[in-house]
Amino acid sequence: MKRYEQVAATLRQRIEQGRYRVGDRLPSIRTLCADLKISVSTAQEAYRRLEDAALIEARPKSGYYVLPRQVPEILPSMTRPAQRPLDVSQWDQVLELVGKPRDAEVLMLGRGIPDLESATLKPLSRSLASLHRRGDVHGLNYDSLTGSLALREQIVRLATASGCLMHPDDVLITTGCQEALAIAIRTLTSPGDVVAVDSPSFYGTMQILKANGLKALEIPTDPQTGISLEALELALEQWPIRAIQVTPTCNNPLGYTMPEPRKRALVALAQRFDVAIIEDDIYGDLSFTTPRPKTLKAFDDDGRVLLCSAFSKTLSPGLRVGWIAPGRYRDQVTHMKYVSTGASATLPQLAVAEFIAKGYYERHLREMVRQYQRNRDTLLGWIKAHFPDGTGVSYPQGGFLLWLELPAGVDCVRLNERLAPAHIRIAPGSLFSASGKYRHCLRLNYASPMTPRVVDAIRHVGATVTDMVAEAAELAVPGLSIPDLATPDQP
Amino acid sequence: MKRYEQVAATLRQRIEQGRYRVGDRLPSIRTLCADLKISVSTAQEAYRRLEDAALIEARPKSGYYVLPRQVPEILPSMTRPAQRPLDVSQWDQVLELVGKPRDAEVLMLGRGIPDLESATLKPLSRSLASLHRRGDVHGLNYDSLTGSLALREQIVRLATASGCLMHPDDVLITTGCQEALAIAIRTLTSPGDVVAVDSPSFYGTMQILKANGLKALEIPTDPQTGISLEALELALEQWPIRAIQVTPTCNNPLGYTMPEPRKRALVALAQRFDVAIIEDDIYGDLSFTTPRPKTLKAFDDDGRVLLCSAFSKTLSPGLRVGWIAPGRYRDQVTHMKYVSTGASATLPQLAVAEFIAKGYYERHLREMVRQYQRNRDTLLGWIKAHFPDGTGVSYPQGGFLLWLELPAGVDCVRLNERLAPAHIRIAPGSLFSASGKYRHCLRLNYASPMTPRVVDAIRHVGATVTDMVAEAAELAVPGLSIPDLATPDQP
Repeated sequence: MKRYEQVAATLRQRIEQGRYRVGDRLPSIRTLCADLKISVSTAQEAYRRLEDAALIEARPKSGYYVLPRQVPEILPSMTRPAQRPLDVSQWDQVLELVGKPRDAEVLMLGRGIPDLESATLKPLSRSLASLHRRGDVHGLNYDSLTGSLALREQIVRLATASGCLMHPDDVLITTGCQEALAIAIRTLTSPGDVVAVDSPSFYGTMQILKANGLKALEIPTDPQTGISLEALELALEQWPIRAIQVTPTCNNPLGYTMPEPRKRALVALAQRFDVAIIEDDIYGDLSFTTPRPKTLKAFDDDGRVLLCSAFSKTLSPGLRVGWIAPGRYRDQVTHMKYVSTGASATLPQLAVAEFIAKGYYERHLREMVRQYQRNRDTLLGWIKAHFPDGTGVSYPQGGFLLWLELPAGVDCVRLNERLAPAHIRIAPGSLFSASGKYRHCLRLNYASPMTPRVVDAIRHVGATVTDMVAEAAELAVPGLSIPDLATPDQP
Repeated sequence: MKRYEQVAATLRQRIEQGRYRVGDRLPSIRTLCADLKISVSTAQEAYRRLEDAALIEARPKSGYYVLPRQVPEILPSMTRPAQRPLDVSQWDQVLELVGKPRDAEVLMLGRGIPDLESATLKPLSRSLASLHRRGDVHGLNYDSLTGSLALREQIVRLATASGCLMHPDDVLITTGCQEALAIAIRTLTSPGDVVAVDSPSFYGTMQILKANGLKALEIPTDPQTGISLEALELALEQWPIRAIQVTPTCNNPLGYTMPEPRKRALVALAQRFDVAIIEDDIYGDLSFTTPRPKTLKAFDDDGRVLLCSAFSKTLSPGLRVGWIAPGRYRDQVTHMKYVSTGASATLPQLAVAEFIAKGYYERHLREMVRQYQRNRDTLLGWIKAHFPDGTGVSYPQGGFLLWLELPAGVDCVRLNERLAPAHIRIAPGSLFSASGKYRHCLRLNYASPMTPRVVDAIRHVGATVTDMVAEAAELAVPGLSIPDLATPDQP
């Protein structure tokens, strides 16, 4: 640990222990230097770290002050999906969100797009340009069906941070994480089969279930610790579940990371019932903790975890570079990859491999994690200021997505309609459920810099929600609670 | 028609009518100029056209001479696949062909890769490099789920040449033609369904059938006119066929283009039995005729043809830019596209759109068609010289693939094994059949320049085949014909 990191850690501890309280002024740079016998630049760097973590703020010509901690007062409640296998609906709503071409006019507050304007991404564009400029036959041709060895080697190297010891042959490159998830699901299932999922769950995966005629069994999920193992165990006893699909690290949309003992227990449960696990780790590298949390794959000693990921959230979604580590299903997954799109595009793989090998990836991650953590705290503050009391808010442990649970009765599909004239769109919670539950919830993105346009938008969303809560209360028959506006359960 | 094209057409007619015969010297440039009252450059250009078409050759200091026509003496026979629905096998063999990373040591004579070294491709690399250098947010982000409008507009413009009047909204961009075919097939079928295919048929499509639990019904196919409409009609009466999948233009592997009346009749047949057609047109733009032949889609007046294509054979397979015009199945295909890989990579689409818009695509096609036609004739000559009598050879009307039918008893999987020490690989015919028929056939690629290394390889393959024919004859019991070494038919 570097000196300024030690200093920052010491100060952080004092803040957390309450020796410095919210609003207190911290020692001046000069005092700090004298007290701790450090240089001015070390003191400055230590304070900058604390600023990045949104623990303190610098006030011009005054000094450094302890900021209020933005921990949500009300977390979303434990989810209670219909605990039986359901057909997946909601495609129309998903298409609304993902189908449109970009429109600079519209502020997309709900999409899962990272910040693409960071300077730390530039070497990637340079590398792509240089590879294409060469225009050699290699780049225009297919690479190996399983993907470029150079990239697979880098992925394996990075995976040690999440507790996985893999060989490059254990990894196949895919066209984004969506293809990884799609071929994993197709490998394991036949139409009519049941797949257990955490709930709410990424709509892209739900739509794969729909397209393959599968049924989703949504398992109650805790907004801080993830899928309920107790409910999952009961479901495994009751239903013929073919696979478990979860996003246990920096979950989309809830933001939690399952604690390690629960991850271990989840793998053990899958072993006991002899079921495969499809693990979506696409946000995992954006965890706010260092080192990043382990994957389920790290606890997988018999090859039943199919680990799916991509560089779409860490680098660029438009490159479509993803990967899968399919464990014991390697042969079938290779076949599915071939019939899905053949080999993936060559040069983006080589560019990403170069970006990682030269250390740019880890540098970029550090920068993004700082930015996203800061943005999370900023957004939490804005939500607290502008949304009605009783709004539940998730506390993401990584990534750039926030989940809001509004008072029951507020319909977020209608909220989107009411936001349309202001050119703002959120992601309604119903997208994240097979049957359209969570319609009173929504997902927000805090990846991009928190500009005045964003704060205005959040203020506007909050005001609209406040109006809708008031309207719902007027409509409600006294003594009757307002129901969750989910699509009616299927028979 | 330009003056030199008129002159070339006149001379070509005289050659075809026998007024100039093989080995004859044509009029000198000076004589031609005087006779036809044309300029020297026009005469030279006309002769160059005939050279490009492999009709004549220039002998230094002597003049222009009529070349022997390389029309195969024996065409492959009408195919006789098992006329009942079969499960698809052969994945191990396909993986052998497509799964390995490139190896500069090995001469891949069997793969469907175009020539990537043409100077006319350079503007594409330049455009890709320039788009990536900009490194703007747009390029790193998703484009529309259905693909870049700029590219869809160009595709629609080009499609008029094949008789299709489409709107950009009729087209979805895919990750190569493989994804287009895969989502078309998934849209139309459920596991256990039967799909009728021309036979031999592209192995990539056959493996999609396998991956989706479908059965292939291989229809007898004529090496010059394509799928037998008579056999197909009988099959439609007899079996519950869910879709017809064909490659009617510049067929892979047989090289034929179905005559237009037969294409029209095929669409009418599909209408009569209310079956959808999945049309693979990936080689269509490489037809040796101008204008290029019409697609089945051109005759499709009720939206039942799903036209699949890509720029993998015309430009570069490593870009993975394909497309589908799904007719009346647009909504389902859009869903399948989303769950398959999400939006396709952004910048390759923009680069291809620019390449077409600036006229580079048509220039590149002209150059490639000339080269491939010349190479075809060269390869036909070599086959004639080096392969045993009785070898049937296809006569491709476009593209860069040749199909050989060897004397029965020659096993091309074993041929590949025997070619391995010489670092040569061909594509065994059995890959192109659900049950591994056509094992005495093989596919060759003539895209790349016909270098001494290639002629040596062809000579070596021919000699090895000649040996194998002799060995098979020795083994054969007198009076007993040598059976087709197909995998035994399934029960």
